[in-house]
Amino acid sequence: MSNQYDDQSFFDSYSQMLRSVKGLDGAGEWPTMEKMLPDFQDKKVLDLGCGFGWHCVYAAEHGAKSVTGVDISEKMLHRAKQQTKSEIVTYIQSDLQEVSFLENSFDIVLSSLALHYIESFESICRKISHWLIAGGYFVFSVEHPIFTAEGKQDWFYSPAGEKLHWPVDRYFLQGKRKTCFLGQQVEKYHRTLTTYLNTLLENGFELLKVVEPEPTEAFLNQYFEMAEELRRPMMLLISARKKKD
Amino acid sequence: MSNQYDDQSFFDSYSQMLRSVKGLDGAGEWPTMEKMLPDFQDKKVLDLGCGFGWHCVYAAEHGAKSVTGVDISEKMLHRAKQQTKSEIVTYIQSDLQEVSFLENSFDIVLSSLALHYIESFESICRKISHWLIAGGYFVFSVEHPIFTAEGKQDWFYSPAGEKLHWPVDRYFLQGKRKTCFLGQQVEKYHRTLTTYLNTLLENGFELLKVVEPEPTEAFLNQYFEMAEELRRPMMLLISARKKKD
Repeated sequence: MSNQYDDQSFFDSYSQMLRSVKGLDGAGEWPTMEKMLPDFQDKKVLDLGCGFGWHCVYAAEHGAKSVTGVDISEKMLHRAKQQTKSEIVTYIQSDLQEVSFLENSFDIVLSSLALHYIESFESICRKISHWLIAGGYFVFSVEHPIFTAEGKQDWFYSPAGEKLHWPVDRYFLQGKRKTCFLGQQVEKYHRTLTTYLNTLLENGFELLKVVEPEPTEAFLNQYFEMAEELRRPMMLLISARKKKD
Repeated sequence: MSNQYDDQSFFDSYSQMLRSVKGLDGAGEWPTMEKMLPDFQDKKVLDLGCGFGWHCVYAAEHGAKSVTGVDISEKMLHRAKQQTKSEIVTYIQSDLQEVSFLENSFDIVLSSLALHYIESFESICRKISHWLIAGGYFVFSVEHPIFTAEGKQDWFYSPAGEKLHWPVDRYFLQGKRKTCFLGQQVEKYHRTLTTYLNTLLENGFELLKVVEPEPTEAFLNQYFEMAEELRRPMMLLISARKKKD
């Protein structure tokens, strides 16, 4: 996977995003995701693509026994360590596709907006199923297939600059997309909803909840531009449980 | 729900569609849906929105013990009866929202491209769960939320008439859409993917498979215009099972 996050100017821009400054409370999807999380009490937690470690700290503060955060970016992890007071949190610098754990290592695997950077969802999904105990939880968010399909990740504008609608194209052409994010070209992978859901079902998971988050009233009132988030889904949140049989 | 199908000119146009002339083999999604169906042997089957009865006949030919087809349209059912030789198939003329059965009446409930005509998916889903035995199957297709969101159900064209992309808008504004189908204004209901999946999960169903069907190679070779079906998802196929506990 590519690693823009260690590029200084990209890192500086990312650091200024609301979600980087305010943490979980600055992420529009967090109220939805929080409701989908299982009880962390005495649980062993893995966070894939932990970034600044907000979710790791949250898990630690909610009673987790141990938390492991993995991220490819040295700069992100450096900041994560500075921000993390809990001693039960361990950070590992690694490409998510390279990291490896023993069978039954975790009770809960989290991943926030990271898995669309990975080429094979099947591969990581199979590994996560292996790392989780039976009955363990996998809760993650990715960019929505509708958001990633066409590739430019932007609205279609009228000549006068008005946002007319969100364009969808190349939906069933899964694979690499090059898009512009924070002034840099970033590589992501587009996958269909079919791929996300059935890969989970075929790798021993039961689907518990599938949510396209909408901004809360509070967010809509506070940030005027959030209203356009009602026009198309941007994210897909999924909670799944590894079956016991 | 509205009933365009008893309007003579609409009925005549619908009767000329490939899926009306050739039946299941003329429906692009059928090869995908067929793979999602459970074994019909000795099963009691309900088909909601049975139209010309293709799925009812299929179930009867595949060993079903009894088949009940429900449709609002008298004209559709008249043709269905003419085409159905099996005596185990019974047709009922009713609005899908009005029809009622006893608890545990069916082993399998099918519905092909009918439930987007119904205002409340929650209501029909709760009823289906009631009508099904524990462990029973609910397999259905609907128009994809991406297909129904904006409302016009058409591509966005360049001034030269080229299909530029599929427009998505008003995604989270669920409810009635007025669209043009076979020269008539038809009312449908747009729902998010979140609504379809979580309503099933909240009404005692386990999700077995969720598929956005792609045209097969054979279809792509035979019908040139099918290639555009790869640009955006048009249908959503779901198979679910009523949980036993």
